[in-house]
Amino acid sequence: MNDRFSRACRREPVDRTPLWTMRQAGRYLPEYRAVRQQVDFLTLCKTPELAVEVSLQPLRRFPLDASIIFSDILLPLEALGCRMTFNPGPKLVEPVRTRAQVDALDRRPAAEVTPFVAEAVRLLRRELDGRTPVIGFCGAPFTLAAYLVQGEGKEGFGALKTMLYREPATLEHLLERLTDAMIDYLRLQIAAGAQAVQIFDSWAGLLAPAHYVPFALRWVQALVAGVADLGVPVIYFVNGSPHLLEHAATSGADVLGVCWRTPLDVVAARVGPGIALQGNLDPHALFATPEEVSRLALDVLKRVAGRPGHIMNLGHGILPETPIASVEALVAAVQTATTRTTDERLPACTP
Amino acid sequence: MNDRFSRACRREPVDRTPLWTMRQAGRYLPEYRAVRQQVDFLTLCKTPELAVEVSLQPLRRFPLDASIIFSDILLPLEALGCRMTFNPGPKLVEPVRTRAQVDALDRRPAAEVTPFVAEAVRLLRRELDGRTPVIGFCGAPFTLAAYLVQGEGKEGFGALKTMLYREPATLEHLLERLTDAMIDYLRLQIAAGAQAVQIFDSWAGLLAPAHYVPFALRWVQALVAGVADLGVPVIYFVNGSPHLLEHAATSGADVLGVCWRTPLDVVAARVGPGIALQGNLDPHALFATPEEVSRLALDVLKRVAGRPGHIMNLGHGILPETPIASVEALVAAVQTATTRTTDERLPACTP
Repeated sequence: MNDRFSRACRREPVDRTPLWTMRQAGRYLPEYRAVRQQVDFLTLCKTPELAVEVSLQPLRRFPLDASIIFSDILLPLEALGCRMTFNPGPKLVEPVRTRAQVDALDRRPAAEVTPFVAEAVRLLRRELDGRTPVIGFCGAPFTLAAYLVQGEGKEGFGALKTMLYREPATLEHLLERLTDAMIDYLRLQIAAGAQAVQIFDSWAGLLAPAHYVPFALRWVQALVAGVADLGVPVIYFVNGSPHLLEHAATSGADVLGVCWRTPLDVVAARVGPGIALQGNLDPHALFATPEEVSRLALDVLKRVAGRPGHIMNLGHGILPETPIASVEALVAAVQTATTRTTDERLPACTP
Repeated sequence: MNDRFSRACRREPVDRTPLWTMRQAGRYLPEYRAVRQQVDFLTLCKTPELAVEVSLQPLRRFPLDASIIFSDILLPLEALGCRMTFNPGPKLVEPVRTRAQVDALDRRPAAEVTPFVAEAVRLLRRELDGRTPVIGFCGAPFTLAAYLVQGEGKEGFGALKTMLYREPATLEHLLERLTDAMIDYLRLQIAAGAQAVQIFDSWAGLLAPAHYVPFALRWVQALVAGVADLGVPVIYFVNGSPHLLEHAATSGADVLGVCWRTPLDVVAARVGPGIALQGNLDPHALFATPEEVSRLALDVLKRVAGRPGHIMNLGHGILPETPIASVEALVAAVQTATTRTTDERLPACTP
């Protein structure tokens, strides 16, 4: 049983720093591209055997310490009656921009709308058989609202921010609905066997602190609280938000995931010792030479060496053109740099 | 002579806080849209009489305290031989991605390539006749390199960041060329009558501090130093960079312009008293009711009340759909909140 990921989430001693990468099942792998030549993105997400196959692909190549289920943060929005296409970015058939539209959203159970996700988690858990834990995930309410209101991923998310200033009560109502739906969705994944969950807040960085707290953080806190009784570690990944770190650290999650913009020692100093950290090598660093990848990975590791609770990861999803050799260099750097003998380990990792 | 903008740049006492807005000559004005129905964007930029006309339009409606010349940060890149189209976003005919391409860039003088900008500054200065100062501008070397390498504005600027990690020397060579060209370009505008210049660093926020300093800040410092002998105030606007403020404040510019993500009192505390600040109302705040616009504008003003050197502005360019009534509310809020009698003014504004 490889539990170094789960232990690091809880800031417990580990034999070496655990490593996984966001979007590790993805287009940088030729075997993933081969699957995608056969099926479109939504079919892949909705077919448990295929979702599990691509979730396992990176683990066959690299000794990673966690496996995240292959899916998309927008899929559970079908429980609210929202329909979307992927070409390749997501597009809502109809953006949600009025109070009437928010009130008309469905309230279907995740188990009924996304049974394929639960089934994929079950299958993946069985296939892994303890080799690594399984991570489930969802989008943060604010980030999901960004897509729902805007109708697509669009720099600045103007329609969303206009709603925030013009009809804040409508946005809050939408956020409440999304939070309820995501609690249900995470609980489904945990019941199916997910041993940790990650909440992706891709667009929180659009907000100044005075808006982040009521429109983003508050709902993440409710979401974390809504699964707390199930006892699995929760990771809150907040992208592009160097101005929000102190607030984000109060989400209630066990782990704060951060992008590459703030060095981890600075993050650690700002958020204090009471939360594990995940990240934060720049995904573009993997376009350097393997020697340079190794050097840059070591730099990240050194910044929090000795601080209990670090999960090595990128600061954002791995990019489609990433060379395999770079991932190998990253893996090797983490293994050689952070493997400790039992004697060395215990003092360094006592909280 | 309205000199409160120039005085605020230098942190000298002012009768009230000066106000202008980035992209104040723009599509939110029906009279601007009327001009654009007649001519395309590039023709507008390259015809001094028209550029001056649209630069003056916002000042006919609102008692703003500065006029920025209508142009685009990419136009002076024609001095390097780079050709581009606008439809509506900029697109380079050929991205610059190799050392050979960088070495092959032209070195033509700005006076020869962009005489229309100098002429527009001269005309605008004459038309204004002291009513407000004229601001010239250029892009920061890193931001210009982002467009040149990527070939267009694109979230993440992957090609640029790949060059940064894979061929940093090529990027540095390009940045050096851009810095030289921008020194020449700003000097042209100042010689033509610009009474202040703003350097727009739209994409510096893509960088962690370890990259920001050598690839962005260093070249801004060289650019500021390259016009220092001309004695006009320099504003450095650094967008989306809450993690870089302390560094950005060392550019040598008189004024640091910031986006809406960090409250101005926090910015002030982080950068210290030695630099004026510009900003930072969220452009989307102008979609709220006039009463709320007024309240939000007052909140910005209060955060730096009594601190010498504040130029009120938005945290980014004004948006095309902005209601005119919102700009009127913003103007009124600044006028009523910050107009002081001489007696009140002097103590508050002594540095």
